[in-house]
Amino acid sequence: MRGQFSLTTINTTIFMATLQLNLDSPVRQIPYFIGDDLWRDLVEFLRANFERHSVFVLSDDNIARHYRDRASEVLDSLSHFRGMITFPAGEASKSREMKAGLEDQLLGQAAGRDSVIIAMGGGVTGDLVGYLAATLHRGVPLIQLPTSLLAMVDSSVGGKVGINHPVGKNLLGAFYHPAATFVDLRFLATLPDEDFRSGMAEVIKYGTTLDDEFWLYLEKNVDAILRREPDALAHIVRTSIAWKIRVVAADEKEGDYRSILNWGHTAGHAVEKLSHFRIPHGFAVASGMRVAARLSQRLLGFPEERVARLEALVQAFGLDRYRCSDFDPEEIWQVMTADKKARGGQPRFTLMRAPEKPELFYPVEKRELFHVLKYA
Amino acid sequence: MRGQFSLTTINTTIFMATLQLNLDSPVRQIPYFIGDDLWRDLVEFLRANFERHSVFVLSDDNIARHYRDRASEVLDSLSHFRGMITFPAGEASKSREMKAGLEDQLLGQAAGRDSVIIAMGGGVTGDLVGYLAATLHRGVPLIQLPTSLLAMVDSSVGGKVGINHPVGKNLLGAFYHPAATFVDLRFLATLPDEDFRSGMAEVIKYGTTLDDEFWLYLEKNVDAILRREPDALAHIVRTSIAWKIRVVAADEKEGDYRSILNWGHTAGHAVEKLSHFRIPHGFAVASGMRVAARLSQRLLGFPEERVARLEALVQAFGLDRYRCSDFDPEEIWQVMTADKKARGGQPRFTLMRAPEKPELFYPVEKRELFHVLKYA
Repeated sequence: MRGQFSLTTINTTIFMATLQLNLDSPVRQIPYFIGDDLWRDLVEFLRANFERHSVFVLSDDNIARHYRDRASEVLDSLSHFRGMITFPAGEASKSREMKAGLEDQLLGQAAGRDSVIIAMGGGVTGDLVGYLAATLHRGVPLIQLPTSLLAMVDSSVGGKVGINHPVGKNLLGAFYHPAATFVDLRFLATLPDEDFRSGMAEVIKYGTTLDDEFWLYLEKNVDAILRREPDALAHIVRTSIAWKIRVVAADEKEGDYRSILNWGHTAGHAVEKLSHFRIPHGFAVASGMRVAARLSQRLLGFPEERVARLEALVQAFGLDRYRCSDFDPEEIWQVMTADKKARGGQPRFTLMRAPEKPELFYPVEKRELFHVLKYA
Repeated sequence: MRGQFSLTTINTTIFMATLQLNLDSPVRQIPYFIGDDLWRDLVEFLRANFERHSVFVLSDDNIARHYRDRASEVLDSLSHFRGMITFPAGEASKSREMKAGLEDQLLGQAAGRDSVIIAMGGGVTGDLVGYLAATLHRGVPLIQLPTSLLAMVDSSVGGKVGINHPVGKNLLGAFYHPAATFVDLRFLATLPDEDFRSGMAEVIKYGTTLDDEFWLYLEKNVDAILRREPDALAHIVRTSIAWKIRVVAADEKEGDYRSILNWGHTAGHAVEKLSHFRIPHGFAVASGMRVAARLSQRLLGFPEERVARLEALVQAFGLDRYRCSDFDPEEIWQVMTADKKARGGQPRFTLMRAPEKPELFYPVEKRELFHVLKYA
């Protein structure tokens, strides 16, 4: 960065100096490599960009069990590979204590500013290890290696990293972009069925809000996707990442447009919370999309036929296991209105007027919500 | 931020998506208000920029004892002032535990994304509270209110925030710039003598490296400065901040030019560390500047007369209490060569060829260092 400096005398007693930071280039490019079996490409990337950096892989014990040997085999060809550090799988690892334990291990192994950290895992790993990398030595280079469908198509794009606090989720963290993200579709081969379906909810989200052609593709390829055929996986992951990147690029940090990604998340978050996070994220979002689709139909004339098609798609991917109607509407309302996105005591929804025509921050009245909750 | 998105097919199996972030404006301006009794200006700034934000002041118990009443009296006029949170004074507070405790208090008091955090205190407070603000809700607005001379002229400029780890100082943190910094000279009235002198070492650093006119000013105004006459304080603080901003603006993050600010810090850090941080930072830097001046004279022909003037200035401000010659040269060498800035087993010094003519990263041999250590 280059900057400028100016001095101003405001009045006889106050003096203002200004630090003006100019980015050398106002552009920062973050590559997402998407393909099948990218280990060698990862090694080449490290050689080309971080030749003298020591390399640490951080992963949860689940992923490590499957991929420790493969990772070591390939990364051992780097002279500075320093091995793998693991932590327990699961949301509970997104804690200050876990971050501190990993910091102790890394600093104990002399990880310096010239270290690269590879976050190999699902959303929890990307969040936890990303935050760790953001604050170690005030930020060391990070490579995201998402292994779950959800992490590939959603959480690994956008730079949001962080951990939970007893008061709420993701309350501590940073915006920190990786040096690169390697989306290796081969990881999907070992993904448990429930996690795969859960990730599909976010894929459906992109189709039903942003890309009508993609919606149709999903409807026509349910079997190929559920069989995890390589071409189908490549298509849905590419398309989803492309949409997420477009939205994030149009609206870095927490701006308005990004809230299109909240489709299904207002009611989804509520039931996720009311279930004490026992309902997996994607399943909760799927039930929330049903609510949002019905609200869109009632309030904005979103076509009835589209509501039915969304319901069918959710069902086809086995994402109808949990329903908002299983919960007390009053409790759902309470959680929604307590949410930071609520304003003036009313929850704000991302709704759709028509395919590819979103309506953001739409205030919804209690009786409207209660009406659709009976059916969604 | 606005960004762009591009898709590239690298080969038949790999596909690269690129997230390109373009800052809306590549310019970010951070104002430093410097003056006497700025409380009302702070309140006006908060009203103008953060009208709906809740306001928290974080401070150590020492500073709170002196300024709690004044702060509350003024800030109570804001409808969203939420009070003061304090922590023990001293370097030991730059810890993960202290950060966690403050996070608990802030989140317990429902501090949200719409909160502003004011860091009122010296360098420890700026570092700790700055890091806290950088990671709370992935970053909330921060206002720095430095109360020590060292914090005013040095640590509050440049965006470095962080805490210590048992393995070393400042190993965890972020680059996080405040929304504004209010440098209220009135805080200097209650600053203990030792802290005032310690801050003067950094002031002397600017004069003896960057600004020959300022060097002369310091020599001519020792008494006025030590009596803390308002005009003298205003001049040295303005001039020092202006230089620090110029250097930081020219070289944000850890680039080359910023290392001019390491004048006196290579040997200074070594004796600081060998004293287990019992020698205050400024006193260590002062002894380090003596070492650097003598090395500059031997290796680069820095005028003998300047070495003598620097020695005299250090003495005039009572900063000659500790000397590098009090320490084992072998131990000093060991600490220096173990430092992350050392390369190829040789410490790198910021030296001077002549006034305002620095020589950065100059490698110094052991026998040269040992020679000057006898006299510095």
